Amino acid sequence: MREGLADVPTRDDWLLEKLSSWSQVGTDPFLITSTEFERLSRVLNAGGLRLVTLERNLVDSVWNNRPPQVSEPLIPLDIKYSGKRASEKIADLRKELIEKKASAIVITGLDEIAWLFNLRGSDIRNTPVFFAYAIVSDSEIILFTNPDRINDTIRNHFRSEGIEVTVREYDDILAGVKELVETRGNVIISTSCSHAFYAQIPADQRIQLYSLVATKRAVKNSVEGEGMRRAHVRDGAALVRYLHWLEENVDSGNITELSGASQLREFRSMQKDFVGLSFTAISAFGSNAAIVHYSPTEETDTLITRDNIYLIDSGGQYRDGTTDVTRSVHMGEPTAFQKEAFTRVLKGFLSLGSAVFPPKTSGTFFDAMARRALWDVGLDYGHGTGHGIGSYLGVHEYPPSLVSSTVSPGNVGLQENMFTSNEPGYYEADQFGIRLEDIVQVVKADVRYDFAGRGALTFYANTVAPLQTKLMDLTLMSEHEVNLVNSYHERVLKEVGPLLLEQNANEAHAWLVQQTKAIVKT
Amino acid sequence: MREGLADVPTRDDWLLEKLSSWSQVGTDPFLITSTEFERLSRVLNAGGLRLVTLERNLVDSVWNNRPPQVSEPLIPLDIKYSGKRASEKIADLRKELIEKKASAIVITGLDEIAWLFNLRGSDIRNTPVFFAYAIVSDSEIILFTNPDRINDTIRNHFRSEGIEVTVREYDDILAGVKELVETRGNVIISTSCSHAFYAQIPADQRIQLYSLVATKRAVKNSVEGEGMRRAHVRDGAALVRYLHWLEENVDSGNITELSGASQLREFRSMQKDFVGLSFTAISAFGSNAAIVHYSPTEETDTLITRDNIYLIDSGGQYRDGTTDVTRSVHMGEPTAFQKEAFTRVLKGFLSLGSAVFPPKTSGTFFDAMARRALWDVGLDYGHGTGHGIGSYLGVHEYPPSLVSSTVSPGNVGLQENMFTSNEPGYYEADQFGIRLEDIVQVVKADVRYDFAGRGALTFYANTVAPLQTKLMDLTLMSEHEVNLVNSYHERVLKEVGPLLLEQNANEAHAWLVQQTKAIVKT
Repeated sequence: MREGLADVPTRDDWLLEKLSSWSQVGTDPFLITSTEFERLSRVLNAGGLRLVTLERNLVDSVWNNRPPQVSEPLIPLDIKYSGKRASEKIADLRKELIEKKASAIVITGLDEIAWLFNLRGSDIRNTPVFFAYAIVSDSEIILFTNPDRINDTIRNHFRSEGIEVTVREYDDILAGVKELVETRGNVIISTSCSHAFYAQIPADQRIQLYSLVATKRAVKNSVEGEGMRRAHVRDGAALVRYLHWLEENVDSGNITELSGASQLREFRSMQKDFVGLSFTAISAFGSNAAIVHYSPTEETDTLITRDNIYLIDSGGQYRDGTTDVTRSVHMGEPTAFQKEAFTRVLKGFLSLGSAVFPPKTSGTFFDAMARRALWDVGLDYGHGTGHGIGSYLGVHEYPPSLVSSTVSPGNVGLQENMFTSNEPGYYEADQFGIRLEDIVQVVKADVRYDFAGRGALTFYANTVAPLQTKLMDLTLMSEHEVNLVNSYHERVLKEVGPLLLEQNANEAHAWLVQQTKAIVKT
Repeated sequence: MREGLADVPTRDDWLLEKLSSWSQVGTDPFLITSTEFERLSRVLNAGGLRLVTLERNLVDSVWNNRPPQVSEPLIPLDIKYSGKRASEKIADLRKELIEKKASAIVITGLDEIAWLFNLRGSDIRNTPVFFAYAIVSDSEIILFTNPDRINDTIRNHFRSEGIEVTVREYDDILAGVKELVETRGNVIISTSCSHAFYAQIPADQRIQLYSLVATKRAVKNSVEGEGMRRAHVRDGAALVRYLHWLEENVDSGNITELSGASQLREFRSMQKDFVGLSFTAISAFGSNAAIVHYSPTEETDTLITRDNIYLIDSGGQYRDGTTDVTRSVHMGEPTAFQKEAFTRVLKGFLSLGSAVFPPKTSGTFFDAMARRALWDVGLDYGHGTGHGIGSYLGVHEYPPSLVSSTVSPGNVGLQENMFTSNEPGYYEADQFGIRLEDIVQVVKADVRYDFAGRGALTFYANTVAPLQTKLMDLTLMSEHEVNLVNSYHERVLKEVGPLLLEQNANEAHAWLVQQTKAIVKT
C-alpha cells in the first residue's frame, strides 16, 4: 500500500478500522518522531487503541540477509571548503546553550553532525553523511559512532579543527543522554528528533526547539557560498555538454532515459572536485515526465525522441557544493499547449527568481509568485516550489522551504545566504511534464528603498544552464520577462562558455552560443 | 502600557520580570481563550510562576459607576435578508454533531449566535449582536440570554424560523454545560472559546474544533450575496456623494476629519435599509493617515486641504449587508513619490482583485500578490491584506483572512461565496498614508482550464467607488492594469450612476462621470 495515493487509506484510518478495541500498536521509538508519536497517540486513544514503544524492532528480528552497514572511511572537509572550523561552530552553539539556559544539546540529524564536525561520509547513497549522534555540553563534545572509524586522519582533523572529541559507541547514545539528564540541567532536543530521545528526557529538563544546528547550517558562509557558485558553473558545463550531446545523438534511436542519465553522469564526473551524484536523476521522456517522482528503471526505460518533451532533473555532489537542476526541452515541434504551459512555468520561475523581499519572508510568499501565471488560466502543479540544499551535503535540506501548505513555527523564513531551489512545473497526465529548477541564493537587493531599514533581499541564480527558447511563447511574455531571460542567458554563456572551451567541448560551446541568443518580442 | 509597541515589554516578559518566584497570576477564565491560557501557563511555569483562575473578576469588584448593559429589543432578521431559516442552519449543525460523534455543541461567539438564530441586537456599538450563549444538542436548542428580551415578537420569530428554543438566564451557561457533560456524550467547543468552557468539560468528552458555525457562516448564501451587492451599490452612492461634496467644499477651510466623517454618515443615512455605521470612520488627512489605526478625536482633528492625501476608511450596516471601503484622494498636486506609492498599492490591489485560484487557497497567497509591486522597490505595509466580513454582522469576521504571518489549522482557505476585504496600503511616517480597500466576493472564474476539475475561482468587487486616477503613474502600469481600472470604472458608473440621479445628486453624477473616464497609457 503506497501511502498518499487516493485509494490507499491513511495509516490512522487503517489502524482504527482493522484493530479491535484495546489493541496496542507497537513502534520502534527510534523510527518515529516525537511529534508524530504524540499525534498518533491522540488519534489512537480517541479510537480506543494505544500506542506503545517496543524494546526491539520486530522487523529487524525477522530480517535475514540484512546487508551489512557500509562503513567507508570518513572524509575530513578542509577549511577551504567548509569556511568555518568546528571549534567556531561549537562555540556558537554553546552561546545558544547559555541563552536558552541549557547545559547540553543532543544532535540527532546526520547532516547536522556532518556539518558541525566538518566531516563527510558515504553511509547513505548520494548524501555524504555517516551514522552518528552527538552531544555538545558546556564542557564536552561526544560523538557516538563506530569508534573504529576514528583513525589518525580523523583525530588529526579534530586537532586542526580545534576540538577535543570523546568518541563513544553509536549504540551508547541513550545511555549518554541518561547520564546527561542525571548529572546536568536542561537538555535541548530538536522538534524533529525521534520519540526515543523525547521519552528519555524528563519534561522539566527538556527544551524542544526547531533544530538550532539546522538553522545555523542553513545560512552559508562566504566560502561555502563561493564554492556553491563554482560547483554550479562546472555542473552547468556538464549539463550543457549533455544537452548538446543529446541533440546531436537523439536521432540514433538508441538513447533512452537510463542511457541518457548515464551519459550525463559521465559529463559530471569529468568536472573538478566531483564526488558523485546528489540523487538518482529523473530522466523522463513524454508521459513519464508527468509522474512527479518518476525515475527510470529497466522496466520503464523509454526511448528519447524528438516527439515530446524531455525532462532532466539531476545533480552532483562536489567537494565545494551540491547541485540540483532541472531543464525541459523539446527537440522537435512542441504543440501550442506545450509552449503555453512551458511559458507559464517560466513566468513563475522568473517571477520568483527576480522577487525582492524583506528578511524572514515566509516561503509561502514565493510559492504564490511561482504559481500565479499558471493559476491565471486555471493550471497548477502538485508539489512544493522549493527546498533548501546543503553545501556538499543533502540535496534536500531544511530550512528554508518554499511550500504553501505548512508554516512551521521554527522555520524562520528566508535570510541572506540561504540557498533554495526554485522549481515550478506543469504536468499533463499521460501526456508530458515540464519543470524548471534553479538553485538560487538569497542576496542583498539593489533597490531604491530598503523596507524601512530592514534591508532588501533578492535571489541570485547559482544554476547556469540554458532555458530552451524554442518552448517559449513570446506573446505571453512581457518585455521585462524577455529581458530577464536574455540577461540570464548572457551570464550562462559568459560563465560556462570558457569552461567548455577549456574542456575542448567546442561544438557544445557553439551550441550554447545558439541556445543563449537573445530573444526579441515582436 | 500599550501592548505591541516597540518599547513596551510583552505581557509575558513583564510578568516574569516583576513577580517573585512561586507567585500566582490570576485570570478571569471568561476573558482568556483556552489556547492563550495554556500557552501562558507554559511560559509562566517555566519561569517558576503559576497561572490560576479566579472565582470573581477583581476589576469588576472595584468598578464603580459601571455603565449599565444596553438591552434594546432584539431584531428578527427576515428570511428575505437571511436567506436561510434557523431550522435549516441547526439541521446542518446537527448533521455535523453526528459526523463528529458529539451530542452537543456550545456556541460562544456572539456573531455566531446572531447568525444562527437570524437575530440581531445593538448591545455592542457598530456590530449588531446581543449578549448570549447557546447550546445545540441533538434534541434541544438552548439560548442563554436575558429572558426579558424574548418577547412575543421574538417568540413569533422562532416559530416562523421553525425552531423551538429553551431560554435560560445568561449566567446559567456554565451550569448548562455542566448538566450537558453529566448527562450526555461528547461536547464540541471552538478553538477560540474561553478557558471557562474548556475547563468545564472533561478531556475525554471535549472535542475542540475551529468553530463549525463560523466556517458555515463564512460561506454566504445567494440571498446574502445579492444583499451584499445591493448594499454596496447604495454605499458607493453615499461615498461618491461625499467625495464630490468634499472636492466642492474643501476650499471653505472648515472641513475637518471629524466634520467630514459626519457628513459621510449623513450621506449613508439617506440610503435605503441603513441601520448605522459598521465602525468609526478612519477619516485621516496627511500624516495622520500614516498612523494605521488612527481615527480622529477632538484633540487630533485636522483640517482637510488640497496639500496632501486624504484617506477615508469607513462602512455601514444595512439590513441587507455590511460594507467597508477605503479610498485615498489628493485634491491638489501629489508628489512623484506619492503617485508612485499609490500606483504600487493599486497594482497590488488589482493583482489580488484579478487573481484566479483553486478552492481552499490559503489567504497567504493573496497577501503575497498584494505586496509584490511595493516589494519590487523595497516598500511594504505593516498590516494584513484582508479580513472576512459579515452580512449585516461584524465588519471583521473570520474566516477568511488574508495574512502572511499565521496559517490557522482550521482556517480552510478561500471558498466560493466567501467575502473578504482587499486592502493593501502604504504609510510614510509623518508624511502621508495610502490605502485602497474593496470588499470582494469569491466567485467562479471563467478561464480556459479548471485546475484539473477542482474548479477555478476569482474575485468580484462588491465595492463600487472610483479610484482616483490623478494619483496613478501610468508609466508604472501595464496595459492589462489600465484595462482593469477602466472596466472597473465603467461598472462603477453603470451601477452607482442611476442611483445618484434617482437621489437628485446630479452634480455628484457629473463628477462621477469625470472620475471614471477611461485612462490611456501613452
